[in-house]
Amino acid sequence: MITDKKKPLTPNLKAIERLADEISRAKVSPLILVHGGGSFGHPFAEQYEIAGGYIDPSQILGFSQTHLAMTLLNSWVMEALISHNIPAIEVHPSSCAVTKAGRIATMELKPLKKMLKTGFVPVLYGDTVLDSKQGIAILSGDQLVSSLAIKLGASRIVMGADVDGLYTSDPKTDSSAQLIEHVTLEELKSLNHKIEGSKATDVTGGMLGKMHEVTLAIEQGIETVVVNATKSGRVYKALTGKKVIGTVLSGKGETVG
Amino acid sequence: MITDKKKPLTPNLKAIERLADEISRAKVSPLILVHGGGSFGHPFAEQYEIAGGYIDPSQILGFSQTHLAMTLLNSWVMEALISHNIPAIEVHPSSCAVTKAGRIATMELKPLKKMLKTGFVPVLYGDTVLDSKQGIAILSGDQLVSSLAIKLGASRIVMGADVDGLYTSDPKTDSSAQLIEHVTLEELKSLNHKIEGSKATDVTGGMLGKMHEVTLAIEQGIETVVVNATKSGRVYKALTGKKVIGTVLSGKGETVG
Repeated sequence: MITDKKKPLTPNLKAIERLADEISRAKVSPLILVHGGGSFGHPFAEQYEIAGGYIDPSQILGFSQTHLAMTLLNSWVMEALISHNIPAIEVHPSSCAVTKAGRIATMELKPLKKMLKTGFVPVLYGDTVLDSKQGIAILSGDQLVSSLAIKLGASRIVMGADVDGLYTSDPKTDSSAQLIEHVTLEELKSLNHKIEGSKATDVTGGMLGKMHEVTLAIEQGIETVVVNATKSGRVYKALTGKKVIGTVLSGKGETVG
Repeated sequence: MITDKKKPLTPNLKAIERLADEISRAKVSPLILVHGGGSFGHPFAEQYEIAGGYIDPSQILGFSQTHLAMTLLNSWVMEALISHNIPAIEVHPSSCAVTKAGRIATMELKPLKKMLKTGFVPVLYGDTVLDSKQGIAILSGDQLVSSLAIKLGASRIVMGADVDGLYTSDPKTDSSAQLIEHVTLEELKSLNHKIEGSKATDVTGGMLGKMHEVTLAIEQGIETVVVNATKSGRVYKALTGKKVIGTVLSGKGETVG
């Protein structure tokens, strides 16, 4: 929701400013932020078929363009965060990670860990990366969230979506769709096939991808809260542990929210 | 020379475009580009005393601002390179390196090596980095050039300066200053004390810093050419190995240029 998904290269500055304000007021520490590509990354990534790997030399310049677009979106985010007094530093996945068939193979975390220790807020994003098997790949923000939460022993994941949480069916097309407030790991696994993918362009899988990735973190005992980031105050409430409309996913069968 | 050193946050777009064109026409492969901070990084880095390390909490947000400024300059450079069909990808030092008292302690090179292998042109820049001893530091473009050239076994370094090369004294203030065309390693070491620092703001040491860093690479047998990048065609000639006005520094006592 930090871009206009229908218009290429268009940041939703109002949403970015509001979310920066909510994050700033929540004063969570330590904190890592991860954002997606929206209308910056996805159209280029699709055009040059980055996710499928290296097939044709024309993809090389296309990869550079896709990555540049992502960094432009990231710059808007960074400016907003810093102007809200959040000591944010971006950690560019393409600078420190290599994937293997689209999955993180190596990721240097020393600078990121040092940032957290020193009081900074590392900011990552879904990025184009080099891949040891297929040459080039997309490393999604969702995979980053799950991987970092596991590797760094995060206590909690807050995921911003453009719907209120997980539904029994797609709320955008099915008016009888019901919000699921609490989901256990077992329920999540059986629900996976019922969750509808987001209808907007998303080369990394939309809601289905998000849930697939986050399952790995929930298996490690990391509670995850999905809230509607397009609605004012939801991210703030989720970050500060207040009661909020959304879906809490946890491995233990008991939930907080 | 890619910024107006007298005006903060002002890119010299004409120079950036011209250099992107020269680099594009030279068709050097493999190639790594490193740029400095000019009027983007240096004023902030000085204001918040980043190079001296962490002393005061106010430096944390200052560090973020300094880094953001550097990434904004880098974005101008990346847009120009890519628009000249150079498949450039930035490698952000703060994302992959940690220094110790200002010297590179660890630097992840897997993504960068994979970029080179796949046909990309990695682009680095002098950056704010985390430091294992002093908390925060500046990792200069010059240190990056020398370190990468040594670690990756570069055959040649081309350094762009705002003067024609190394002089017997500062050509900006001394009209009797003479350009030195060839310098051997031994001469360089004895010349070091004679080379005047650049008069413009440069927290990383100007020409003196450049020469100190590059000495390490020349000791490893890497020929280095210093040319005036503010003059059209000099960088192109140096990159393609053509005869060019400048200073050739080499360890062997014999020179190419």
